[in-house]
Amino acid sequence: MVVYRSSTTAPVNIAVVKYWGKRDPKLNLPTNSSLSVTLSQDDLRTLTTASASEAYTEDVLLLNGAPSDLTGARTQACLRELRTRRAALEDKNPSLPKLAHLKLLLVSENNFPTAAGLASSAAGFAAFVRAIADLYELPASPTELSLIARQGSGSACRSLFGGYVAWRAGDKADGLDSQAVEVAPASHWPQMRALILVVSAAKKGVSSTSGMQQTVATSGLFQQRIATVVPANMDLMEQSIADRDFAKFAEVTMRDSNSFHATCADTYPPIFYMNDVSRAAIRAVETINQAAGKTVAAYTFDAGPNAVIYYLEENSEAVLGTFYPLLQSVDGWKQSTNFKSTVQLDETISSTLKGGVSRVIMTGVGEGPQKTDVYLVSEEGKPLSTSS
Amino acid sequence: MVVYRSSTTAPVNIAVVKYWGKRDPKLNLPTNSSLSVTLSQDDLRTLTTASASEAYTEDVLLLNGAPSDLTGARTQACLRELRTRRAALEDKNPSLPKLAHLKLLLVSENNFPTAAGLASSAAGFAAFVRAIADLYELPASPTELSLIARQGSGSACRSLFGGYVAWRAGDKADGLDSQAVEVAPASHWPQMRALILVVSAAKKGVSSTSGMQQTVATSGLFQQRIATVVPANMDLMEQSIADRDFAKFAEVTMRDSNSFHATCADTYPPIFYMNDVSRAAIRAVETINQAAGKTVAAYTFDAGPNAVIYYLEENSEAVLGTFYPLLQSVDGWKQSTNFKSTVQLDETISSTLKGGVSRVIMTGVGEGPQKTDVYLVSEEGKPLSTSS
Repeated sequence: MVVYRSSTTAPVNIAVVKYWGKRDPKLNLPTNSSLSVTLSQDDLRTLTTASASEAYTEDVLLLNGAPSDLTGARTQACLRELRTRRAALEDKNPSLPKLAHLKLLLVSENNFPTAAGLASSAAGFAAFVRAIADLYELPASPTELSLIARQGSGSACRSLFGGYVAWRAGDKADGLDSQAVEVAPASHWPQMRALILVVSAAKKGVSSTSGMQQTVATSGLFQQRIATVVPANMDLMEQSIADRDFAKFAEVTMRDSNSFHATCADTYPPIFYMNDVSRAAIRAVETINQAAGKTVAAYTFDAGPNAVIYYLEENSEAVLGTFYPLLQSVDGWKQSTNFKSTVQLDETISSTLKGGVSRVIMTGVGEGPQKTDVYLVSEEGKPLSTSS
Repeated sequence: MVVYRSSTTAPVNIAVVKYWGKRDPKLNLPTNSSLSVTLSQDDLRTLTTASASEAYTEDVLLLNGAPSDLTGARTQACLRELRTRRAALEDKNPSLPKLAHLKLLLVSENNFPTAAGLASSAAGFAAFVRAIADLYELPASPTELSLIARQGSGSACRSLFGGYVAWRAGDKADGLDSQAVEVAPASHWPQMRALILVVSAAKKGVSSTSGMQQTVATSGLFQQRIATVVPANMDLMEQSIADRDFAKFAEVTMRDSNSFHATCADTYPPIFYMNDVSRAAIRAVETINQAAGKTVAAYTFDAGPNAVIYYLEENSEAVLGTFYPLLQSVDGWKQSTNFKSTVQLDETISSTLKGGVSRVIMTGVGEGPQKTDVYLVSEEGKPLSTSS
């Protein structure tokens, strides 16, 4: 029996203006716009093969080798929408193979350890949607697909593009204007680098899905973030990217991360994603910038303690050279990293980072999803693994 | 030569609606009203003797045995105002001794270790103003004196009263309506207890004087706190005290502390007063309340990592019994404390508290400044010490 297959990769993105809060949880519509940098798939990517066959008896998703639930309302919304679009194509063009009614086998693998504690759902849902859209040969642009991916996982809509990507909140009730657009391609400002300090959390914090709605419901400060802080940050951030103005990009990145975590701390009961190690990373970045006499590094934190530090390639020595001597025993440094900066961190900051950072990831701005001939489903419809 | 003397004690207060931000730094006028509980002077108090004599050649302040600067603009403003009032009395009644023009010797001692990291400036300035006002026999009410003490240290104005005390922000440019009033005496709700977990900070954070003005200048969320959050919290807090409604009192206390620290985290660069030990105390309080099936404990944090936990005497076992078994090796427990609760804290919370709490202070709501016959200046005008 014939097995139809399509494979794609999709990237991780790390927001510099954060998504936090839904105005419509069912449609996954956000309270505010957000903006992210897509990270290079050389370092962080999901590879997903979507396949359809008469031989399949149910929809199945294998994630890193393990069966994963497809019955969630959000996943089902994505699948329904993709099948509806395929069915419309088949209706218009009877020569097309009838795929819309076939069950799907989806196999997905990340090239980074789950232990890294990186939110992989954005890359995962982006690859999921892109792979099925490719399998179905849908003539949909990334922005159109972003409407579908958004329903699976909000920030996934931004992983359908490379470079610098905005998710416009939109204001329509049906969410048809809540979609991702490319603000600038990676080639516009390819010097952007990211050093991720992976911080071992004692315990997984509140999930972002429930956390953000607790913030919307209980934070007395949240409305101010939505009404004035984020709109101003979006404007400044887009301008800083257009101008390749790192100092402005960095300040907005840091302020927006602070504002987001402030609304978490103002949630009742309070939500804390950052810990003392995260705060030491902030102080280290401040020290690096003071020593440089200008802003050469910017911290940002998602819903967890990991620090993501953006910097430009030309300032690699100032940034990597500060962290590498401290953290050279952990995994993740690239061969070329043997920098040593003259920045002296406070003793407490150094020891806190040493004791709390479990690995690093060195990466930078990168491209969007890529179609590939590497398949995780065999021609016979059996799951494969890249690592097997 | 005759030495005129007057001695007073003054209490520490811990706000449940926080003062953070000045609308006029010179007059020490706040951006918002605040409300505090005055703590018992059995546990925490400043004792200050003010003395005046022809023999003195300059104004001198000895704080815990060491000379302390009196030349600061704020201290000078307090001294000037007190002397002006005394001079007016002397003008009206020529039989009064002429004290206004005499130099002052002020000797002050705290009954708690400086290492406790408790902001002692509120008690210190309250005792300073009260002792001189008594020495000068000023017919000023505590609220009138609060206008003077406020100029020395904002929160000092609240330490001129016992019980439950509001500092009304006022809106006059001259600050004459920015004063403290008693919301309820200690006798209205005498069951209020406080357990202070003293947390060793690796390093002193940003001072509150400079920190609050950084927040005013840079936090995008701060205006919302001032415009809506605090006014609502003040109303709810006063109602909860009038009704002796601990659950409401506790919720507003915790929310307001969260909101205050959120605006600190939203300051640029961010200000962090709480650390992982502080956050473990929050989780412990949440666990205690969950186990009790109602709100029996409330955390609040000032500009430092110490946790102040308010509870009612009737719930001593639930609260003290949770912390005592963990922290029984540190100083500060009272003899009657041998409680053991059935509340089981998460292992990470327990070990974080054990490793980070250096002492406890057990106290409760108490009275305002008390005149006393214990003098820290001899009849001959020499400094004394209670501990010598």
